[in-house]
Amino acid sequence: MSKSATTRPLQTAVLGVTGYAGAELARLLVRHPRLVGTPPVFIGRIDEVDRLRGGIPLSEIHPELADSRGTGDLRLHSFTWEHLAEHNVDTLFLATPHESSRELAPEALKRGMRVIDLSGAWRLNSVQNRAVYKFDDEASPLAATTQSEAVYGMPELHRAQIRNARLIANPGCYATSIILAVKPLVNTGIVDLSAGIIADAKSGVSGAGKTPTAKTHFMHAADNLSAYGVFSHRHTGELLEQIGLTSDQITFTPHLLPIPRGILSTLYLRFHISQSRNSILTLYREFFAASPLVRIYESTLPQIQHVARTNYADIGFEISAHGKRAIIVSCLDNLLKGAAGQAVQNLNLLNGWGEAEGLE
Amino acid sequence: MSKSATTRPLQTAVLGVTGYAGAELARLLVRHPRLVGTPPVFIGRIDEVDRLRGGIPLSEIHPELADSRGTGDLRLHSFTWEHLAEHNVDTLFLATPHESSRELAPEALKRGMRVIDLSGAWRLNSVQNRAVYKFDDEASPLAATTQSEAVYGMPELHRAQIRNARLIANPGCYATSIILAVKPLVNTGIVDLSAGIIADAKSGVSGAGKTPTAKTHFMHAADNLSAYGVFSHRHTGELLEQIGLTSDQITFTPHLLPIPRGILSTLYLRFHISQSRNSILTLYREFFAASPLVRIYESTLPQIQHVARTNYADIGFEISAHGKRAIIVSCLDNLLKGAAGQAVQNLNLLNGWGEAEGLE
Amino acid sequence: MSKSATTRPLQTAVLGVTGYAGAELARLLVRHPRLVGTPPVFIGRIDEVDRLRGGIPLSEIHPELADSRGTGDLRLHSFTWEHLAEHNVDTLFLATPHESSRELAPEALKRGMRVIDLSGAWRLNSVQNRAVYKFDDEASPLAATTQSEAVYGMPELHRAQIRNARLIANPGCYATSIILAVKPLVNTGIVDLSAGIIADAKSGVSGAGKTPTAKTHFMHAADNLSAYGVFSHRHTGELLEQIGLTSDQITFTPHLLPIPRGILSTLYLRFHISQSRNSILTLYREFFAASPLVRIYESTLPQIQHVARTNYADIGFEISAHGKRAIIVSCLDNLLKGAAGQAVQNLNLLNGWGEAEGLE
Amino acid sequence: MSKSATTRPLQTAVLGVTGYAGAELARLLVRHPRLVGTPPVFIGRIDEVDRLRGGIPLSEIHPELADSRGTGDLRLHSFTWEHLAEHNVDTLFLATPHESSRELAPEALKRGMRVIDLSGAWRLNSVQNRAVYKFDDEASPLAATTQSEAVYGMPELHRAQIRNARLIANPGCYATSIILAVKPLVNTGIVDLSAGIIADAKSGVSGAGKTPTAKTHFMHAADNLSAYGVFSHRHTGELLEQIGLTSDQITFTPHLLPIPRGILSTLYLRFHISQSRNSILTLYREFFAASPLVRIYESTLPQIQHVARTNYADIGFEISAHGKRAIIVSCLDNLLKGAAGQAVQNLNLLNGWGEAEGLE
Repeated sequence: MSKSATTRPLQTAVLGVTGYAGAELARLLVRHPRLVGTPPVFIGRIDEVDRLRGGIPLSEIHPELADSRGTGDLRLHSFTWEHLAEHNVDTLFLATPHESSRELAPEALKRGMRVIDLSGAWRLNSVQNRAVYKFDDEASPLAATTQSEAVYGMPELHRAQIRNARLIANPGCYATSIILAVKPLVNTGIVDLSAGIIADAKSGVSGAGKTPTAKTHFMHAADNLSAYGVFSHRHTGELLEQIGLTSDQITFTPHLLPIPRGILSTLYLRFHISQSRNSILTLYREFFAASPLVRIYESTLPQIQHVARTNYADIGFEISAHGKRAIIVSCLDNLLKGAAGQAVQNLNLLNGWGEAEGLE
Repeated sequence: MSKSATTRPLQTAVLGVTGYAGAELARLLVRHPRLVGTPPVFIGRIDEVDRLRGGIPLSEIHPELADSRGTGDLRLHSFTWEHLAEHNVDTLFLATPHESSRELAPEALKRGMRVIDLSGAWRLNSVQNRAVYKFDDEASPLAATTQSEAVYGMPELHRAQIRNARLIANPGCYATSIILAVKPLVNTGIVDLSAGIIADAKSGVSGAGKTPTAKTHFMHAADNLSAYGVFSHRHTGELLEQIGLTSDQITFTPHLLPIPRGILSTLYLRFHISQSRNSILTLYREFFAASPLVRIYESTLPQIQHVARTNYADIGFEISAHGKRAIIVSCLDNLLKGAAGQAVQNLNLLNGWGEAEGLE
Repeated sequence: MSKSATTRPLQTAVLGVTGYAGAELARLLVRHPRLVGTPPVFIGRIDEVDRLRGGIPLSEIHPELADSRGTGDLRLHSFTWEHLAEHNVDTLFLATPHESSRELAPEALKRGMRVIDLSGAWRLNSVQNRAVYKFDDEASPLAATTQSEAVYGMPELHRAQIRNARLIANPGCYATSIILAVKPLVNTGIVDLSAGIIADAKSGVSGAGKTPTAKTHFMHAADNLSAYGVFSHRHTGELLEQIGLTSDQITFTPHLLPIPRGILSTLYLRFHISQSRNSILTLYREFFAASPLVRIYESTLPQIQHVARTNYADIGFEISAHGKRAIIVSCLDNLLKGAAGQAVQNLNLLNGWGEAEGLE
Repeated sequence: MSKSATTRPLQTAVLGVTGYAGAELARLLVRHPRLVGTPPVFIGRIDEVDRLRGGIPLSEIHPELADSRGTGDLRLHSFTWEHLAEHNVDTLFLATPHESSRELAPEALKRGMRVIDLSGAWRLNSVQNRAVYKFDDEASPLAATTQSEAVYGMPELHRAQIRNARLIANPGCYATSIILAVKPLVNTGIVDLSAGIIADAKSGVSGAGKTPTAKTHFMHAADNLSAYGVFSHRHTGELLEQIGLTSDQITFTPHLLPIPRGILSTLYLRFHISQSRNSILTLYREFFAASPLVRIYESTLPQIQHVARTNYADIGFEISAHGKRAIIVSCLDNLLKGAAGQAVQNLNLLNGWGEAEGLE
């Protein structure tokens, strides 16, 4: 890494600080022990050029960040490549819509930056799976080259590749909660895939984004629960590619919970032959032995309150009386381990720092 | 009343059924015992001409109304005067923005309809108080004539006038909760107005309307409380005119509660001379002796859960040890007694029916 | 039915009015058009003898019932058989814990009353399934006789038997939402049971009862979601017996939602051969053709807000691209169609009234 | 301070870690930069001797603390003076009921510890104000001596005294939010006290404690708002003593909000002569110039979301058109600046550390 050759401290930048994931990134990076003295360059929505010209205090957008470790002095700027160049940004976080990330990442790489993209723009290898995003660059050689460089940024699965990546596709929030819970079991071959895996997932409202819509109106979201994206949610492709399944082998249904943040996924699968509680516990523990941000529950089940506002993914499970069926409960904070926290985890790996630095 | 001369059943219409108050009106009117067999004509937002052309099932907008007492067959139409005329509408409810109500009411009166307007368009007699609405008709003779006809539709205060009104200005939700609690005391002259009355009011999110905004986004409204409209809320004029106060004699602060519906107003006032709990209780009971929709609490305080989804206004109070100060708690459902329920109460009075018919 | 032979109006009684389901029963019965003039006899918790001696106003326990259709005058009494006899109670609702219902029902039958029991005491035919309740009467001939008389009170499945029953075991709330959604499909033989049915169910907090516990504390329930009773919930036996499944053929996981009321069950199943959306829609519509309280969604999915505070069960579904998998969403209000509403539906059948009277 | 004379690191202990404030204290102290390497001794409820014998992992009570900075290894012990002595505890936090604190504090002082008490046991100087707590030691010389030593632990008012205190009475949560907002204005003599100050305060449910009660049941607290303790709340004495008011000069009404945490107090007062926005802003800024944990808003009002999970008190205000009336909005997190955060702020002062260390 060129980084390690110099003594210049890392200069990060965050595009899209005005959104929920961007705000969490701001919070994490400002307090990151390795970035003390070199706060990130904060950029707003790329379409907000006028409002942000000359910069506005970050605390106008996020009052809760005011005066805390000097964040009150930090400013939010409009996007230009020149602004990033002036500040010698070497690592760029994209907390932008997937269409924007699809456009911005190749240019950033060309300009020598490393990119951690929080959108779905670069997560999927298969053209077929990617179709759901309707990118208009599918025939472009630049897009194809860039895509081939992208590393799926789930440290628990791809730690080595991430360390050397130039473009990291930070995983989807639902996908993270499901892949972490299912992959260790499927990997060993004990899961009967012909019966299909069921992933019944529930997410807080921050997952639906900051733009006010009928769906995110308090009157609709409160005192309610609704399923959506049935058989069609965008994160499905990540499940197929990362776990290694055909589309018939997993059924994923997201639901909108009346809470601000947190995901709980309930996973149902069958084993070829009976498994004991202990064998499954051992299997999880071995799989995550080197993973500081995954907590395996010995005898209880995680709840959303256990992970909200933390960077952990928590996993617990029950085995049926005859050992042939498992119910796994997987929880995380959709804005942290499901987005900004995992992005910082990837930043740590990129720079050879402790994987959980600034995250506990 | 021409109505009483004929045997033709009453034909009502509701403009603005797509909003929260309009939906509650639809629900109340469909089940109103006096309107069985002649359901209201339902009209959407006046700007939604295309979407509603030819009518759509009401249950598409309000699924919870489907199949219930035949509401599933009711249709929602776009607005034209001709449509109302074809159906011989004689009573028109306006659940429309105040600008629209200000335009529509005079025309409806001209066409011989009686109008119950749920907006703030016609509530205020004083030009000065009305300035907050910025109507562009202040110099118009038609507006002035219409305004002079308008009756403030609070049955507990203006029962007799309402019975003979052509245009009823249905009160604001906050104003209803405050006026009902304060008027009986101020009326008697026992309140020391020089010390000022404080009205600290808290409302659920439905009071902020159905349009998705940053304020009504679940992420802002949930787990939060905020004051707004400090020294400037539109309902202040109603307080001044109906209670009979100068602007210096009452301070009104609304707050946004993280709940769907309900208002609780906490009122603070001082007496010239000491009052006993019993004297105040008697005073309230006498004032509301003929009012079936106001409940006076003998020894406890009302809470929002006591009134949510009911048409009641509940009032309780405490007197300080020396009898010189009172704290009054006044609760109602902002969409019912604070809007649609009070509108139906006015409809009942207009037609000589029992004041609480269809409301208990 | 002896009832129809006389002209004496029906006299009902409710035991356990202090709980949530009991309160909903009170509300429904007080407004039931067939019971006007003969309000139910209201009895509190059977252990509350002292507090209720001589009766207390019902509105002390349920302030929201005060003054509404005279409910304010209704009184809540302590339990004695004599009190029921004096009032000539002929139909007794038990909104009591299952241990109490197991004791009280045989005695009530002996005294000539008909019983609608809302607890789990009499729902299960199989001794093995019943073991979860740990009744200490398993060897008792009286219990066995009574059990053999009990009819599972789901009108959509057992309408004819319910009409002639003396003891109705009102179904569990989760069980109702799952059975109504799954039974019509399993019945036809199209479901591949070897793959197993998954029932991922989520319920509001009222399902956990009125007793304050760590689980129902606002601080635990709010901003949270938790799974519980994994592989062990009491309602499982109802699923097995009523749908006709072995315990390996269905996996049921309840979750606690941070909302007051409502259940949403997401059901996953596989078909032997591909099914079209239309064939499944037809199948549901035919199954529920005579059922006024089940609403089948043509093209969307129900949400909890569609059913909260109603007596309906709403069912919607999606079929996978190849027609081999279905996801069904089933919603109801756990206190109404899942408890008190279904109990009144059973009362209606018992008396030959319209099945949905007093419920729309 | 004897502390500064030695190089031994500070050894703290927390009694009552099982409650909400105790848990927040645990979280703050474990991460406090000055306590790295010497985690606090954690003690449970003083009546939980058996359950905690030998100690249990802290994460059993607070799963969210597990594995975070080693907290997973920390243990929770039962209370004995010997246990504290063995660990050379020099600073004892009491997160205990006021009766317990009243008993324990004198003994702890005798044993040479400094005490920071989070209960109401030692906050009130006046016997009359203290009557509300019904201590049975009012005639005891030891209680009187101890009381005379107690310093009201609000750093913004009593910074110098706190630095040298042996017993700190950490302020009440409501009292903190009100005193900080009102004291700076009353101090200058501009407030017309004859008109009375109104403090309408609203708190999240954590303020009601961890014991499950009818009041803290989700079904009561959610979708509700209720006033309580009208004219009688225990924190009133703190307002009188710290602001310097007679009981007739302030009216304080607390309300229970349907949110987990946070207090918003809306304060109403009148000035003798007109004040400008700027003069009030200057006055606040000067008063809090040396106070890092109070944030004064220049032109907007604070909301609960701005302070939840922070250690700040936020203050904003509006002045009426004629400058004679002010509405002040004061927000804080009841468990942090209103309890545990302020306790750590006091710890910092006691030890000559930066007042906000470990709190930003």
